[in-house]
Amino acid sequence: MEKSAIYHQPCSSYAYPYDKETMHIKVRSKKDDIQSVVFIYGDPYENIKVDGEYQWVSHRAEMKKSATTNFHDYWFIAIKPEYRRLQYAFVLTDSNGESVFYGDRDFLPNDQVTFSVPDNFFKFPYIHEIDLFKTPEWVKSTVWYQIFPERFDNGDPDRSPENVLPWGSKDPDRDDFFGGDIQGIINRLDYLKDLGISGIYLNPIFKSPTNHKYDTLDYYTIDPHFGDKETFRTLVQEAHKRGIRIMLDAVFNHIGSKSKQWQDVIENEQKSVYKDWFHIHSFPVRDGENGNFDGKPSLSFDAFGFTTTMPKLNTANSEVQNYLLDIATYWIREFDIDGWRLDVANEVDHAFWKKFHQAVLKEKEDLYIVGEIWHNAWNWLQGDEFHSVMNYPLTKSIINFFIEDKIDSSQLISSLNGHFMKYSRNVNEAAFNLLDSHDTARILTLAKGDAQKVKQALAFLFAQTGSPCIYYGTEVGLDGGNDPLCRKCMIWDEEKQDLDMLQFTKKLIKLRNDYHSILSQGSLDWLETNDSSKKVLHFSRELGNQSLIFIFNHGDKEASVSLKEDHSYTDIWNSKEIETKKIDVPAQGFTVLKTKS
Amino acid sequence: MEKSAIYHQPCSSYAYPYDKETMHIKVRSKKDDIQSVVFIYGDPYENIKVDGEYQWVSHRAEMKKSATTNFHDYWFIAIKPEYRRLQYAFVLTDSNGESVFYGDRDFLPNDQVTFSVPDNFFKFPYIHEIDLFKTPEWVKSTVWYQIFPERFDNGDPDRSPENVLPWGSKDPDRDDFFGGDIQGIINRLDYLKDLGISGIYLNPIFKSPTNHKYDTLDYYTIDPHFGDKETFRTLVQEAHKRGIRIMLDAVFNHIGSKSKQWQDVIENEQKSVYKDWFHIHSFPVRDGENGNFDGKPSLSFDAFGFTTTMPKLNTANSEVQNYLLDIATYWIREFDIDGWRLDVANEVDHAFWKKFHQAVLKEKEDLYIVGEIWHNAWNWLQGDEFHSVMNYPLTKSIINFFIEDKIDSSQLISSLNGHFMKYSRNVNEAAFNLLDSHDTARILTLAKGDAQKVKQALAFLFAQTGSPCIYYGTEVGLDGGNDPLCRKCMIWDEEKQDLDMLQFTKKLIKLRNDYHSILSQGSLDWLETNDSSKKVLHFSRELGNQSLIFIFNHGDKEASVSLKEDHSYTDIWNSKEIETKKIDVPAQGFTVLKTKS
Ligand SMILES: [Ca+2]
Ligand SMILES: [Ca+2]
Repeated sequence: MEKSAIYHQPCSSYAYPYDKETMHIKVRSKKDDIQSVVFIYGDPYENIKVDGEYQWVSHRAEMKKSATTNFHDYWFIAIKPEYRRLQYAFVLTDSNGESVFYGDRDFLPNDQVTFSVPDNFFKFPYIHEIDLFKTPEWVKSTVWYQIFPERFDNGDPDRSPENVLPWGSKDPDRDDFFGGDIQGIINRLDYLKDLGISGIYLNPIFKSPTNHKYDTLDYYTIDPHFGDKETFRTLVQEAHKRGIRIMLDAVFNHIGSKSKQWQDVIENEQKSVYKDWFHIHSFPVRDGENGNFDGKPSLSFDAFGFTTTMPKLNTANSEVQNYLLDIATYWIREFDIDGWRLDVANEVDHAFWKKFHQAVLKEKEDLYIVGEIWHNAWNWLQGDEFHSVMNYPLTKSIINFFIEDKIDSSQLISSLNGHFMKYSRNVNEAAFNLLDSHDTARILTLAKGDAQKVKQALAFLFAQTGSPCIYYGTEVGLDGGNDPLCRKCMIWDEEKQDLDMLQFTKKLIKLRNDYHSILSQGSLDWLETNDSSKKVLHFSRELGNQSLIFIFNHGDKEASVSLKEDHSYTDIWNSKEIETKKIDVPAQGFTVLKTKS
Repeated sequence: MEKSAIYHQPCSSYAYPYDKETMHIKVRSKKDDIQSVVFIYGDPYENIKVDGEYQWVSHRAEMKKSATTNFHDYWFIAIKPEYRRLQYAFVLTDSNGESVFYGDRDFLPNDQVTFSVPDNFFKFPYIHEIDLFKTPEWVKSTVWYQIFPERFDNGDPDRSPENVLPWGSKDPDRDDFFGGDIQGIINRLDYLKDLGISGIYLNPIFKSPTNHKYDTLDYYTIDPHFGDKETFRTLVQEAHKRGIRIMLDAVFNHIGSKSKQWQDVIENEQKSVYKDWFHIHSFPVRDGENGNFDGKPSLSFDAFGFTTTMPKLNTANSEVQNYLLDIATYWIREFDIDGWRLDVANEVDHAFWKKFHQAVLKEKEDLYIVGEIWHNAWNWLQGDEFHSVMNYPLTKSIINFFIEDKIDSSQLISSLNGHFMKYSRNVNEAAFNLLDSHDTARILTLAKGDAQKVKQALAFLFAQTGSPCIYYGTEVGLDGGNDPLCRKCMIWDEEKQDLDMLQFTKKLIKLRNDYHSILSQGSLDWLETNDSSKKVLHFSRELGNQSLIFIFNHGDKEASVSLKEDHSYTDIWNSKEIETKKIDVPAQGFTVLKTKS
């Protein structure tokens, strides 16, 4: 038995309350090393007298091997502790019949002496509803659509920057303006409703000199090239009328160098009232002086990266905290927005995000909070900071398999399983899942224009736990490499739109909307493919007695996949009954089956 | 290479800021499997142009194997990131020369392709001083003394319960009273000062019908058998004059059934204004009705265990929160106490403890917070709840080796290393270390009266990182089995005191006080013993260029231990110079050396 690989951490994603009465417990072992895991559990205080001595009342249950990665098996059980307290341990047995007890004091002999000592067991001391990881219920059934406002539609040509370029007249350079605005989004709400999406994530819309507006000049003002407060109010109201929610982008890690606060520091240096709003190591902070050259590590103040136009805010300063928290609640209070996406969220302190969480949820209890974090974000996802992060690790796995053919099906499964196992189920159910964004090359470009690959990747994304997001234009075949090329103007000319992709996207969104419960909350089980090329994926999503079967054939020839004998199936993607217990999926194709009860 | 055993978790006790500029990084591998670990790191945004392409500026450093357990090696490095941001990964090489890259996307080939992708690296995004785990500086140099007030000294015979028993006249039963009080403690402050301790942890002193007072009746009143507010104020003032700090016991998980709040619920049931202060499943809640029999799982309300006299408080209720937070700050504000020990801390919700942390530290910024948690408490030790927990896992390891001879030296080292590795260094430095308490049998009784074993165990406890605590009476040979026997009256009759133990304890406390910096903050390295019986321990504690060497011989015959050749040594325990590079330690003995610079 490879004991060095066995891992459990109490009070973590390995042992957490899924709801106010259910505990989820996981333990990890070396792949293929352990044959069975028995879960020993009970209330820490429940004892009965046996032959004059008190004995702990314990129960036993088999754990299920629920996920496997390249190196590990994950064992799972869900338990409802009768008195809300849980004392537990694992008995792991390998194929040679060796058994060990694994608990809070590590490995011990699997015997009565071990069992008689309460300290040998792990504890989940008490399930407190107030400590649950709670996410807004609406998020799970939402399909998101991300809009980069400057490039979606120019609905108000009078509100455009001076040097505005004709819509779509060229590929964007870093400093180009094309005149997109909020009125443009309002004008297209019916289009979006028809597409089927139910949430819009907007890149920044507050006053700023750039087209991307990540260098905010004034957080209380809508950028005049985008509209004004009334335009924005109309957008939220009209979106809500159509059942579409609005999430804004909060850039709180740094402010724009053109803001009054930074300008005051430039001018008044040590004497500025805003001096402590930043992390300044020496004055002056003016561009081109004292080491302050854009992109150079010699900056005399902390910035986003080494970008002189984005000085970092000191979020430990209570004036800054009050300022940002007022902004965060202002746009909820006055305009009824539904979510905040937090830019560079990982570089802002946890203490601030905890205050942010409390403040915004007090204003609107089902507001959604998504942090921009590209790496393992477990520490921000403990229930008191974010509901979710931009799920880029999922993005990367999907691209590696479907788009760039860098990994095979077993590697894809391993990386997805490993990724989902990092978090609690509550986190995964509210994940913000995406294939691309304003910060990455577009999926169609990564696929070198192969629309079929894009369709497979999109369909796979939509089949995962969490809420999928479509980056504007993907549905009509918009392409583009890394920033600034991924921010091209939306294609509104039907002749230039990929109408096949549009129909496909609508169909996919409808599928997601029709089966949102099972797709957001159902379990995922990987099934047998008998595919030696490792290009075929076969998995089920199950909730209650409902289940969907997904089959993706990423290979070059038709794949034939066996279905479980004890069910009958309908192909809901192609709207036909399945007569046999086998299904043929064409090369680069996929399908979705529903089991009949 | 056993990849399944390799473990690192970003933003955890494996990667944390030790202070505002220093990161501590650990990675775990299978014992004896890995030969070297190279730490690759840099600022995530620092790139230089090489041949027209941007390349990340990275650095390399060897990690040190800093601890070994039965199954794992732990590799460590401390790094000061120049721009407060850290991007990092590990290159692990085994004895066959196989090398792998280990980062945020798990294992990858150790090649340039891997290095060129920032997402392959772990991140510590930014060191925020506000998020540091901060502990009161004074704790590290404190030697604690725990007093169970009813049994320490009867300083005011007029303030004693009616049926008070003559001091020490019998072994205590559960319901006995012996008349101990706060005046008794005041009278003995000079004794304690002379002993050398610098902090008193008092078991509960608020009004309650029992001798242990864990069933509080009124948190605003000193128990009248113990004294009144003026007596308590005098105690704090007189202790402070002598450089002794006072920590009280906060019993916030539950309240006493005789409290006005619970009595009101008994009487008024659903109509009680205190109904939501508890977790009540059905009425009535009166003893002997509706399943409410002491010790039975059929209770119709949540309690401490199944104890009817200790109904659990609903700390998610804001009225309860305000009530308890006012109590927590009242005793600081009005009486200047220095610490709170939190009873049954693990069963109270995290949200409450975060509020508690903020409230009490706002009142007194260097107040010490110690939770009663017997198991792995990592989740309460993230910097925003407790500074420490009662370090019972350390207790158990010491007892297993020194007192009960259940484990050998290698098992002791493994369990200590494993335990310390669970937490950050900041946590370990402020740990509340103890051998026994009101909740366990006394150490002398566990040692079956063998005072020499007790001396070894105490000396070893005092040599560890963290603050040691002596349970009242240990210094004079007080014994006693499990509760209630561990709560015997203090021995004040010198003829009955173990005066040799008293001298020993004073000497040991003096050693700790003389070398508090090195003992609380120095590193600990286990050294060679050449002892096949596995009864000898040899370790150094080092800080800066100072170091102490401890040698414990728990065997039955003299042990001879070789010292490093490149130093000369003074035996500071026995006050003699060491002339050779070898030292002989008698059976069941120990000594402490100081290296001469
Ligand atoms: Ca416009
Ligand atoms: Ca008395």
